[in-house]
Amino acid sequence: MTINLIQDFIRWLREDCPFSDLTGELIIDDNVYVRAVVISKSYAIAACVEDIVEILKWLGINVIRHISSSTALKPGDIVMEIYGKARTILLVEKTIFNILTHLFGVATTTRKIIDVIRRINPKVRIAATRKVIPGLRYLVKKAVACCGGDTHRLSLSDAILIKDNHLKIVGDVEKAIRLIKERASFIHKVEIEVTDVDEAIKAAKAGADIIMLDNMSVNEVRKVIEKLKELGLRDKVVIEVSGGITPKNVAEYAKLDVDVISMSYITMNPERVDLSLEVVEVRKE
Amino acid sequence: MTINLIQDFIRWLREDCPFSDLTGELIIDDNVYVRAVVISKSYAIAACVEDIVEILKWLGINVIRHISSSTALKPGDIVMEIYGKARTILLVEKTIFNILTHLFGVATTTRKIIDVIRRINPKVRIAATRKVIPGLRYLVKKAVACCGGDTHRLSLSDAILIKDNHLKIVGDVEKAIRLIKERASFIHKVEIEVTDVDEAIKAAKAGADIIMLDNMSVNEVRKVIEKLKELGLRDKVVIEVSGGITPKNVAEYAKLDVDVISMSYITMNPERVDLSLEVVEVRKE
Amino acid sequence: MTINLIQDFIRWLREDCPFSDLTGELIIDDNVYVRAVVISKSYAIAACVEDIVEILKWLGINVIRHISSSTALKPGDIVMEIYGKARTILLVEKTIFNILTHLFGVATTTRKIIDVIRRINPKVRIAATRKVIPGLRYLVKKAVACCGGDTHRLSLSDAILIKDNHLKIVGDVEKAIRLIKERASFIHKVEIEVTDVDEAIKAAKAGADIIMLDNMSVNEVRKVIEKLKELGLRDKVVIEVSGGITPKNVAEYAKLDVDVISMSYITMNPERVDLSLEVVEVRKE
Amino acid sequence: MTINLIQDFIRWLREDCPFSDLTGELIIDDNVYVRAVVISKSYAIAACVEDIVEILKWLGINVIRHISSSTALKPGDIVMEIYGKARTILLVEKTIFNILTHLFGVATTTRKIIDVIRRINPKVRIAATRKVIPGLRYLVKKAVACCGGDTHRLSLSDAILIKDNHLKIVGDVEKAIRLIKERASFIHKVEIEVTDVDEAIKAAKAGADIIMLDNMSVNEVRKVIEKLKELGLRDKVVIEVSGGITPKNVAEYAKLDVDVISMSYITMNPERVDLSLEVVEVRKE
Amino acid sequence: MTINLIQDFIRWLREDCPFSDLTGELIIDDNVYVRAVVISKSYAIAACVEDIVEILKWLGINVIRHISSSTALKPGDIVMEIYGKARTILLVEKTIFNILTHLFGVATTTRKIIDVIRRINPKVRIAATRKVIPGLRYLVKKAVACCGGDTHRLSLSDAILIKDNHLKIVGDVEKAIRLIKERASFIHKVEIEVTDVDEAIKAAKAGADIIMLDNMSVNEVRKVIEKLKELGLRDKVVIEVSGGITPKNVAEYAKLDVDVISMSYITMNPERVDLSLEVVEVRKE
Amino acid sequence: MTINLIQDFIRWLREDCPFSDLTGELIIDDNVYVRAVVISKSYAIAACVEDIVEILKWLGINVIRHISSSTALKPGDIVMEIYGKARTILLVEKTIFNILTHLFGVATTTRKIIDVIRRINPKVRIAATRKVIPGLRYLVKKAVACCGGDTHRLSLSDAILIKDNHLKIVGDVEKAIRLIKERASFIHKVEIEVTDVDEAIKAAKAGADIIMLDNMSVNEVRKVIEKLKELGLRDKVVIEVSGGITPKNVAEYAKLDVDVISMSYITMNPERVDLSLEVVEVRKE
Repeated sequence: MTINLIQDFIRWLREDCPFSDLTGELIIDDNVYVRAVVISKSYAIAACVEDIVEILKWLGINVIRHISSSTALKPGDIVMEIYGKARTILLVEKTIFNILTHLFGVATTTRKIIDVIRRINPKVRIAATRKVIPGLRYLVKKAVACCGGDTHRLSLSDAILIKDNHLKIVGDVEKAIRLIKERASFIHKVEIEVTDVDEAIKAAKAGADIIMLDNMSVNEVRKVIEKLKELGLRDKVVIEVSGGITPKNVAEYAKLDVDVISMSYITMNPERVDLSLEVVEVRKE
Repeated sequence: MTINLIQDFIRWLREDCPFSDLTGELIIDDNVYVRAVVISKSYAIAACVEDIVEILKWLGINVIRHISSSTALKPGDIVMEIYGKARTILLVEKTIFNILTHLFGVATTTRKIIDVIRRINPKVRIAATRKVIPGLRYLVKKAVACCGGDTHRLSLSDAILIKDNHLKIVGDVEKAIRLIKERASFIHKVEIEVTDVDEAIKAAKAGADIIMLDNMSVNEVRKVIEKLKELGLRDKVVIEVSGGITPKNVAEYAKLDVDVISMSYITMNPERVDLSLEVVEVRKE
Repeated sequence: MTINLIQDFIRWLREDCPFSDLTGELIIDDNVYVRAVVISKSYAIAACVEDIVEILKWLGINVIRHISSSTALKPGDIVMEIYGKARTILLVEKTIFNILTHLFGVATTTRKIIDVIRRINPKVRIAATRKVIPGLRYLVKKAVACCGGDTHRLSLSDAILIKDNHLKIVGDVEKAIRLIKERASFIHKVEIEVTDVDEAIKAAKAGADIIMLDNMSVNEVRKVIEKLKELGLRDKVVIEVSGGITPKNVAEYAKLDVDVISMSYITMNPERVDLSLEVVEVRKE
Repeated sequence: MTINLIQDFIRWLREDCPFSDLTGELIIDDNVYVRAVVISKSYAIAACVEDIVEILKWLGINVIRHISSSTALKPGDIVMEIYGKARTILLVEKTIFNILTHLFGVATTTRKIIDVIRRINPKVRIAATRKVIPGLRYLVKKAVACCGGDTHRLSLSDAILIKDNHLKIVGDVEKAIRLIKERASFIHKVEIEVTDVDEAIKAAKAGADIIMLDNMSVNEVRKVIEKLKELGLRDKVVIEVSGGITPKNVAEYAKLDVDVISMSYITMNPERVDLSLEVVEVRKE
Repeated sequence: MTINLIQDFIRWLREDCPFSDLTGELIIDDNVYVRAVVISKSYAIAACVEDIVEILKWLGINVIRHISSSTALKPGDIVMEIYGKARTILLVEKTIFNILTHLFGVATTTRKIIDVIRRINPKVRIAATRKVIPGLRYLVKKAVACCGGDTHRLSLSDAILIKDNHLKIVGDVEKAIRLIKERASFIHKVEIEVTDVDEAIKAAKAGADIIMLDNMSVNEVRKVIEKLKELGLRDKVVIEVSGGITPKNVAEYAKLDVDVISMSYITMNPERVDLSLEVVEVRKE
Repeated sequence: MTINLIQDFIRWLREDCPFSDLTGELIIDDNVYVRAVVISKSYAIAACVEDIVEILKWLGINVIRHISSSTALKPGDIVMEIYGKARTILLVEKTIFNILTHLFGVATTTRKIIDVIRRINPKVRIAATRKVIPGLRYLVKKAVACCGGDTHRLSLSDAILIKDNHLKIVGDVEKAIRLIKERASFIHKVEIEVTDVDEAIKAAKAGADIIMLDNMSVNEVRKVIEKLKELGLRDKVVIEVSGGITPKNVAEYAKLDVDVISMSYITMNPERVDLSLEVVEVRKE
């Protein structure tokens, strides 16, 4: 929600400027205005541009033009052209860059993987996980979505996912699924993380909607799927693979009959994207 | 400051759990306690462990033992051992991991570069920049410092740094330095970013304390230094190189007579570090 | 989450006491401690008692004993016995009562309806809606859950629900469901609100997981169900009825083959519950 | 104060939408605008409409027309007509309704009681108490005032009121009043809650400005007033009755020579009011 | 309220330390503890010491002993003796001093004026006004009260005071008082600011409870009182004088038959008080 | 930063008006607008006027004209002329006055001292300290700067200053300076507080950039400077004197060869400045 973003952005500005911009306020007069362009210096996919544009407007900066999220950029492409007080633009410059380079990185990495996967298995989805830099959940998930990724759950409060540590405490798969079915709202699907064929079969039989095969090798995943097919359970569940999946091995998983591949890699280790702001006109008002 | 951290952490928890942990609250009883270990799955340098320990204690989690920041870890090493309510530990697990993996990544990357550089030029410092994920400035700078890096300025409010866009607006190097010297507090050094030999000479003559050579090739930097030496100005200024420096080319810069090499790479593209939490004992209280 | 609650509670205390308790601070010495009991003056179902106990402890008030949430109370029953500074206890008294009487009211009303319904149709669930007093979502939903109600979605961010105004904008049921299936994460079920038989059939055919029959009479609901059965679609969807359902007509709906009955009545018009705090011992420390 | 309200409203929106409106953002384009009317589906008295209008404007929603607070509504009456982004209007819809239905309920209930009472005793005031849903104090008190009720104190910080638990701690009425007179600012009246004739007489003699007769029967109240008249003290004090007063028995109290009747009923158990939002035009901009 | 204070204090600490204590964290080890004394270097009256002690405890600093608020101090007297982490104590030192020196100044100035006045006219009260440094209202008013001053109203929300600018808008004294009496809650007294004899008489006749004679000379005030006595109105109202009253002329006003003298001087221009913190023991734990 | 200021201002308004302006809202209609002038009643130097103007605009108040910060005012001079809703202007009046009178006081006091000093020693700077009323750091430092004062450090996080209590813990001057030089970022100068000639010499030799002579008499300062000159160290360090310097003795220090005189007097005991707001036109819109 835009209001949430603005509150985050104000906090980030306070972080980068707890008192005042020592340099800018001392050498730039208050009546100096600049026109500037934000330029990509990398090949990248844009993300969350509209959100940043909203924030810039809210800060009194005039956005003359801007590209849309999910646009593919090459070095030299203009991301946006802005006009406003020089002091304000220099004040917010780094905060905008720091957030956009991370988000563009997430989008770029996600898109590259999707491009590879689509050729192999058009029905499989690439999903993010809850491994996201704290404080950026909303924007990072949006960056994933804008280039065709699946956001997966946004937080602990919007979906059921029984994980290995839950199972260690509860005891077994059937009991965990049974408790959830009794107690959770009917609006939720039930997802469970399993680590071997047996647990996967139990989960499917107990009525799980989604089975996450965690940290399994390609071979293990293949066996689980074969076994589920044998038992006529494959089509009753969504199969998600997760854990240790990187750009290097993702294609191998995509060749299998899985529905979702989730990767923390796209949100925690996005590739480097570089942006720069160039003042193209200085004016006194 | 710990209080600031706790406020950040609460906000991160709210992000990951705006209402309640749907899964945990439904299947784990309130009286279940667990002992768990946080284990490194990578070679890594630890950072900010003491800060996270403070937060865990504040949350009522008992920290039985933990390593110190700047410790070198190998896969399997224990980062900390904790005891507390199962619900609380599972609630905070991901937030702690998301922040620690990023911080350990920053420390690990910084240390690797410093290890390389020290052998080449023991007097040069590796410094971070203001390119840091928004919301994490304090912790990321601390991670840089704990393994021997230099934090550089923390925000726009704690140091003077005249950059290219300031110069475009003010006009020239001498004027910018003169204005700052007149107007800034005597407590600050004056740093200026220059892009060629001429500007560097002007800056040194005008009394800059620190000259940042921005986006210059190794050759250009060498020429600036030679010229400054010729004019007897080299020892009056601190020389910082910045812009486009990566693990690949940092050694080349380190061979020169520079004082500081600053790199956004260490804070924006840290290497992947993996941690896991294993429940090792379940108890009802 | 307890931390969220504490932050809410502090805000409520500031509302009830922006400066200081004028009366209490002027006539009660700082070293006076009291033992007090919170007593129910009504027949009621308790809710969220553990949450309030957590808050009281956090405020330095000693909770000697307390009942559990979902306990049935009669007039005179003790909800909790506490000990602490007289000034603190009198400061928080009204805030605790105002919130608990509302929550106990919600739980009491929900339980009464469930008691009636269970005898008629044990498989039907009573669910809350998003009609909840602003600021109390988490606690009110918890009060609903603690006596057997279904929380339904907690916010706009945790479930998909296509409503009448969405349909007015998008155009038709099939298109709305198709768009959602393409764009939403695989973790969510798809719910849609419909207002006649045709829409219900379309929704079921288009693959909706949950169909909410909104503001339909008992007869209309019956017809929808018959029609769905005829078409073999009944078991593919969850049927929820909603809109205008009160304690007076809920039994009629419960006689039908519906899965969920959702009622804003339980959260917006809970019955009156009365509590009182009695000081039973005064001591100087 | 409007600023306070906006801050509350933002918090309520975050509660109802911690990330984004999953449904709306997925199926409604950002350039869709709607004209919509908010309609009353009940007989009701409007309250705080101007406050909500201020908030809507602040959120960028255009309010074409609206009724004034304290207007009497019948089913079908339009409360306001608005125009704005479809996404924004659907985002805030429920929050506005949840707060307005509660406030209209408070106003409606208050007005009904005042209408009854005025015919019996035109000089008596109906007052609210501090029993108000936490977080809504300002708006609920305003709803009470807008239809002729008396707000009574807004918090512990704006008036002196010595209650039963204070007396248990201090010891007796005279001492409590004496301490307050010595220590409180001269700007405050002194109110005291008493539970029998003796205490009432003592309070009047000790110089209380307002005497609250708490939880007394009609007969007991009558006796207190007679006794005060006998002693020539009646006109020196304001008489307030409070405790257990409902629409059923309020008329009996109003027949007595009391000045104020305070009732938590009007703020904690307001009658049900129903509103709906109807989209009447969809447009792309 | 202590919770409000702690939130203020945290904000003040963040102001004085947005990141970390650069000096302290670099040269003092985390395991160094100190015993220190806070000493007065001036003659002063202590105020709000208990509040600061609460905050120090909350911050984990051990308060070994401390004086009470309203104690008279001479140079060299110990205000408190504390023990805790060296880093924490040095971190909070200046914030505590900055607030305490201001508050002690307010108390000292208030007490001096009261001491002078009491000898002249024991029944007159010295009151503060709303002229208080923003952000410190609660503590400053408490400092005034702790040495015998009257807090007057704490904010715009806790008392009625009709001022000159209100009268310019409303038109005349009678109308303003009449409107207030109709519309304000019965719990409030009615105060009005007047600037000449005529207005004062009108206000008394219209039923004002308190009349503030604003910016009147001693002679003018004397005439108003004589006139009110003539008309038998003197004892029906509280007479407050205000505006331009300083330590130099306050005695002249006190000789008159006034009830309250309010002075912004005591809160905006308190006399200088000096405190210092001396480390008396250093220990490693 | 303006955003920080607005957040502070909102908090101050909430402090002065936790609910509503009881008087203004009851007697002034919502459609009344006023034109008003803010007038100085003292000789004063204006400060931070532009900041307050920004806030007023943000609050919807029209600022017709205003003077600039650092303007010298005499009684009767207009500070600003504004137009807006009567209710809003009266709501914010006192908050604006309370902050401006303090800031104008700081600026006035600073300017007077600078005027005196400049005639004696044009090269010496007058600096503020960290002794500032909590919550006002940014504005007070800005007020100091706007009339030619030096802000000195803004917080513990933007400069290194080794003080007496640090030395008590660390042991000696050389060690403290050595630790700082090893550990602090290269962007900072190193300042140290010393109390006698020996320490001053040690500090200069150890490479301190700035030496603060704390609480030394004029004679002692003279001796330190002579000694530093003898040793050829004078020009290597900035000499700051601090501690106990007031308008009475500042001229004596200024006669010496010092660089900076820092005084908490200018920020903690500024002279009294009086402002008033006069409504000059009332209009209904």
